[in-house]
Amino acid sequence: MKTIASLALAAAVLTVSAPASAQFAKPEDAIKYRKAAMTIMNAQMSRLGAMANGRIPFDGKAAAEYAEIAAFVSHLPWAAFGEGTDKGDTRAKPEIWKEQAKFKEGADKMQAEMVKLAAAAKTNNLDNLKTAFSATAGTCKACHDAFRKD
Amino acid sequence: MKTIASLALAAAVLTVSAPASAQFAKPEDAIKYRKAAMTIMNAQMSRLGAMANGRIPFDGKAAAEYAEIAAFVSHLPWAAFGEGTDKGDTRAKPEIWKEQAKFKEGADKMQAEMVKLAAAAKTNNLDNLKTAFSATAGTCKACHDAFRKD
Repeated sequence: MKTIASLALAAAVLTVSAPASAQFAKPEDAIKYRKAAMTIMNAQMSRLGAMANGRIPFDGKAAAEYAEIAAFVSHLPWAAFGEGTDKGDTRAKPEIWKEQAKFKEGADKMQAEMVKLAAAAKTNNLDNLKTAFSATAGTCKACHDAFRKD
Repeated sequence: MKTIASLALAAAVLTVSAPASAQFAKPEDAIKYRKAAMTIMNAQMSRLGAMANGRIPFDGKAAAEYAEIAAFVSHLPWAAFGEGTDKGDTRAKPEIWKEQAKFKEGADKMQAEMVKLAAAAKTNNLDNLKTAFSATAGTCKACHDAFRKD
């Protein structure tokens, strides 16, 4: 058994004053950072998917925690897609930098669905979880199809 | 400029009902996950350290966000140190599993300092940030010295 502090999502929006590119000393630091965020999101989404699809028993308390972590971390990767981070140990397609509005729209959509997923997971109802998981996973897939190399 | 949702730390403690070991299909998944969490914490702590030590200008708003992310993510690695995750692509020392009470104590101390750091960063006062950063970084170093290979 493991206890962790419960972490609540606030609706307020915070503007970070530093430009995203200033936050990483080297492009490879940015790439490593955004992949780390994706690793954490993927782990939580895999668990939620396993519950939604009946491969593991539904556990409302655990689902709420998994979704909360995924929703929090869903905000992190985007500052790490700055100029010069298109080369290196990354599956990012050049389209990310060529179609920035479309990329941002996809990222925003995913983050919005993550908030809904976290809310659905808190209802302790498997059907709610299934619906919200499916919508959220769809936004992940849409971006990966368009912007990530196989 | 980048906007992200502001995320508030709640004081309540949540008990996760699934055993930690059940959360990862393979030991290498757990290792990758805990390293991802450390990567994110390290990035935020590096930025906060650069402000505390005057290498980059103090920016209270950015500091508050960096500390909030570090504090959230500080709860994540521990579930990924289950049995069988001592071998592989990891710098974890065997002492983690031999001295579990000491390891947990160190992890708890760090998470407690992270909460204080997040509070200090919100005061928009560089001296508060310096004091809290130093205390938090000390808890990182203590665990790394005892439990991480060079």
